[in-house]
Amino acid sequence: MNVNLDCVPCFMQQALKTARIATDDERKQEEILRETAGLLSRLSYECSPPEIAHQVHEVIRRVSGNDDPYREIKLHDNKLALGLYPWLKQQVRESDDPLYTAVKLAVAGNVIDYGVNRAFNVEETIERVLEMDFALDSMDEFRNELRKAVHIYYLADNAGEIVFDRVLIEEFRDKRITLVVKGGPIINDATLDDVEVAGLGGRVDVDYIGNGMEGSGPERTDPLFLEKLREADLVLSKGQGNFEGLNREDYIYFLLMVKCPLIARHMGVRVADIVFTRGFRSPV
Amino acid sequence: MNVNLDCVPCFMQQALKTARIATDDERKQEEILRETAGLLSRLSYECSPPEIAHQVHEVIRRVSGNDDPYREIKLHDNKLALGLYPWLKQQVRESDDPLYTAVKLAVAGNVIDYGVNRAFNVEETIERVLEMDFALDSMDEFRNELRKAVHIYYLADNAGEIVFDRVLIEEFRDKRITLVVKGGPIINDATLDDVEVAGLGGRVDVDYIGNGMEGSGPERTDPLFLEKLREADLVLSKGQGNFEGLNREDYIYFLLMVKCPLIARHMGVRVADIVFTRGFRSPV
Repeated sequence: MNVNLDCVPCFMQQALKTARIATDDERKQEEILRETAGLLSRLSYECSPPEIAHQVHEVIRRVSGNDDPYREIKLHDNKLALGLYPWLKQQVRESDDPLYTAVKLAVAGNVIDYGVNRAFNVEETIERVLEMDFALDSMDEFRNELRKAVHIYYLADNAGEIVFDRVLIEEFRDKRITLVVKGGPIINDATLDDVEVAGLGGRVDVDYIGNGMEGSGPERTDPLFLEKLREADLVLSKGQGNFEGLNREDYIYFLLMVKCPLIARHMGVRVADIVFTRGFRSPV
Repeated sequence: MNVNLDCVPCFMQQALKTARIATDDERKQEEILRETAGLLSRLSYECSPPEIAHQVHEVIRRVSGNDDPYREIKLHDNKLALGLYPWLKQQVRESDDPLYTAVKLAVAGNVIDYGVNRAFNVEETIERVLEMDFALDSMDEFRNELRKAVHIYYLADNAGEIVFDRVLIEEFRDKRITLVVKGGPIINDATLDDVEVAGLGGRVDVDYIGNGMEGSGPERTDPLFLEKLREADLVLSKGQGNFEGLNREDYIYFLLMVKCPLIARHMGVRVADIVFTRGFRSPV
């Protein structure tokens, strides 16, 4: 998806939110907001939202001097999710359809992303998601492809949520898994540290996409990265950011909770819906 | 109130919303958003939110070529409010405390500002407001000052709402009223046209504050304008914009429905509360 005009005020809000997490110095927060406004007045909007977000976060890192503003939040979310892990495994074990339950849990894990500013009962929210139907549902197709697949590319989303991804990955059993995380910190996105903390270290291959900083990995749309995805037997992508960057790739299964009204409109679903869909078959 | 960092993304949202009302040309909408971002990267934030809003609207007028984007909306709102006028008068007539009911109606008229994008039953909303208590209530003090006052300065807010102001002004009976409107169009703020349409023409003196364009009138904080307010026996100010620009003037009665979380925090009330308060006695 390309940047829409509605994304532009939203980038400013995200910049302010992250600036306040990155530094307590109000002059630096103001400088971040001013530099972000300057970027948004100049940058081309002919790209996906995550590509602009990368540049906004580069500003935040540079001005605040904080390379990883969400570090504490990611540690907290991982700890919270690891505490739930035995209960998550129990849900799968007791299910009539363990694979479907594990897919549902993987999307439910995305609610932890909401948790930063809100007090809520995570278990209760997860149980609610388990009872929801997918607004778009490619489960049957996915089940068939999974049976034949040998090598799966799995694009992770956030820290914390990655523990829920582990529960799903454990249902893939003897498949070869390549887990894609960020090659450097950006917001609360999962990185190699989170792979280790989640208990997936040594059990999956790890590949990287970038956070906008040199050496952190390619953009999602980099031709060499896309070639690796196309060569895999099955690609599963978590979250909105990966959808925004990769929605033209019609072979990818996108698993996400919809939080943005533009993505909801694009998909023909509503905000807060859960979605499991194989691409949109738009031209690559 | 000075601009807060939270206002900055909000200016972008307002720019986009008004750009879409001002023109259907998406390239112009994008140009408005880019120029607004450029302004916000450069302008001093040591001013009140309306002062920045004036500059944003200057951009919208210039780029869109539309001097009065809300023209149709204002006509619609005036018509809607005039249709309610007999019912409003009946509410006052049947009230045990006509002045208090008229004050409540004047603040209830502010809901029409919400009406632009939402379908709702206006009468029902007004009845709900009539049943609400003021979160801050200076009614007794106002009643006493009104008794002694000869000359009242009344700062209007929006078109449509100005018909509700008429109902209150009619309860002031034999007082001399100076009604302050905008000297040129900005958003849906009341102008001289709306004074006429509302049926107040010839019944009040009219004074002006600016819309940011040369010749449209002074800023609210202009010393000569403030001198006129201070010389009046009583000053009644409607809406958030006037509060943002004039909240340091501790002799002004502010009557408004709170829509912005920052103003709510500043006042110690909640969003959607109604407020009738005499200044904040902060240093002028």
